[in-house]
Parts: sequence; C-alpha cells; structure tokens
Amino acid sequence: MDALQAILTRASVRDFTDQPISDGDLHTILEAGMSGPSCVNARDWSFLVTRDPEILTKMAEANGRPAEPLKKATLGILVLGDLERAFPRAPEYWVVDGSIACQNMILAAKALGIGSVWLGTWPQMDRVERQQALFDLPETVVPHSLIAFGYPADPELKGRGFYEEDRVHMDKW
Amino acid sequence: MDALQAILTRASVRDFTDQPISDGDLHTILEAGMSGPSCVNARDWSFLVTRDPEILTKMAEANGRPAEPLKKATLGILVLGDLERAFPRAPEYWVVDGSIACQNMILAAKALGIGSVWLGTWPQMDRVERQQALFDLPETVVPHSLIAFGYPADPELKGRGFYEEDRVHMDKW
Repeated sequence: MDALQAILTRASVRDFTDQPISDGDLHTILEAGMSGPSCVNARDWSFLVTRDPEILTKMAEANGRPAEPLKKATLGILVLGDLERAFPRAPEYWVVDGSIACQNMILAAKALGIGSVWLGTWPQMDRVERQQALFDLPETVVPHSLIAFGYPADPELKGRGFYEEDRVHMDKW
Repeated sequence: MDALQAILTRASVRDFTDQPISDGDLHTILEAGMSGPSCVNARDWSFLVTRDPEILTKMAEANGRPAEPLKKATLGILVLGDLERAFPRAPEYWVVDGSIACQNMILAAKALGIGSVWLGTWPQMDRVERQQALFDLPETVVPHSLIAFGYPADPELKGRGFYEEDRVHMDKW
C-alpha cells in the first residue's frame, strides 16, 4: 500500500474477524515498531505480545471499558517503556519513543491490511498499575499503550482525516 | 512509495539541498500530522511552520547544538501541544498525541522524497522555555518537538532498522 494512503486513511478499527495474523506479518509489525527514531537512539521500549484469547481478555479488563475491542482482537501488543535504557538526562523521552513505536506498528499493520486501535494507557496511572500487576513487571518497565490488532470486520472502513487550517501558524504564533 | 518501505528505511537526515518544498507537499505533510489518532480525538496540537532562514536559525539556536541541521533545512515545523484541547481527565496524553503527529509528518515527508530529522524538545524544559519565549506562546501552548525538513544532500541515505529479539516478550514478561 502507498505510504500516504496508509497515513491519510488510517482509521481506528474496533471490530475484527477471526482470521489470524501470520508470524511473518507479526514480525513486520514489530520491526516497524523498532524502526522509528528514539531519543539518542536509546530504543527504550519493549513489546509484550499475545494472541492468547485468555490473556487478551485479562489485558482488556486491566485497561477498562475502552479496551473492549481487545477481546475480539487476534493480536494484542502492550508497548512498554524501558527506563533502564532511557536517556539519563531526560528519561521522560520514553513517552515520545513509545508513541513513535506504536504509530509505526499501526501504520505497518494498515499497510498489511490489518486493522488496529490504540488503547491509551499512560498517563492514566490506574491502567498503568493494573497492567504492571497483571504481568508482574519490574519497576523500570512502564506500560505505555496497548494496541489491539486484527483483520477488520468492515474492510471498507476508512479514516476521514481532515485539515484544520486554524491549527497552522506561519512564521509566528 | 510503499508504506512498509517508508517505515523501515526512514533515516534521520541532517544535511539538505537548497531545493524548496512545494506548498502542495507542505500541505500533505501537515495533513499527515493531523491524521493520526489522538486521545478521545482531542486533536490537541498546533503547528508553527516556517521556511524563513532567519526564523529557522533562531529556532535552531533556541534548541541548542543538536538542532544545527535546522539551519540548513528549507522547512521547520515546531509541533505544539494545545492544553486547552487536551483530555481533561488525563491532559498528559498531549505528549503522546504530539508524538504521533510528528512521526506521521516524518513518514509522509519520506514518502515524498523529503528528508527530516526529529529534534527533541519536551521534556527538556530549557528548550521548551526558549521556544516559548522565542514565539511568545500562550501558557497553554507547549513546545513538543521540532522537525527539520529538506531534500536530502545524500539521496542514497537509508535507515538500517534492526529487529531486537530480546525486546519481544511472548505472553508474559
């Protein structure tokens, strides 16, 4: 798929078919997640990946009602910030770096015909703590975001991105 | 350009030719920036855009030495978080939403043959404050990141993304 088409027509997909995602496509999605820039090239993230329906349900419940689509997903990825790898002078760049990884995975999935929805986790600390407890994560590993993936139940679903002129400021505020 | 190719071969480009970026391509880049997901669809960002060499130089100096490539860039975009639009229950999602906008713009540029480099700003508050002062921004408008764009001096430059097996955890930590 054309890159601009992938970016401009991406939509949040919340309903999925049962069709599984192949190992090859999973690898491509994760490789995309690892191909973004990161602060001082810290690559300060990890990925907790599952296709197990029981684990997907537990992940969904830990994130609350907006994460319901995960229960129908065939793949879930919990993106984690790795504070041990973060830039010591400004460790909060882990939030930026994790976001880049998420968006790259979502776009790679779109290019492969796979839908996804980003389920916000950080900075909602109740969600962060429940994911930490669910997977018994070390203190330096912080849940960033959860993404549900699967083949879209409605393959015609397209984003309706729009350009907001008043968000653009030329040369000055 | 193919979407996966754009994602997997993106590189940080720090040296640019003088060739200007057209209005049409600038519009596409900004539209890409506005086409990512955002928390509760808050679209809590703005874009301060310049092609003026004098302003590009001032922006570069406000961000310090790593922002030198901006002095050779033909386009600079300062991505701003708009706290008035942010999700009231968890406003810090503005950091995630701004990051998504940046990565979308970088990938759209790549698809158009335009190079870019992400110049980290937030959470380095000295940089944030100097950009705020330079553009006399309202308190609710927070500099997120600066991106330098231009046609690459070395058109052969390609990313060398790599897959790190030990960053992937199946089903459990």
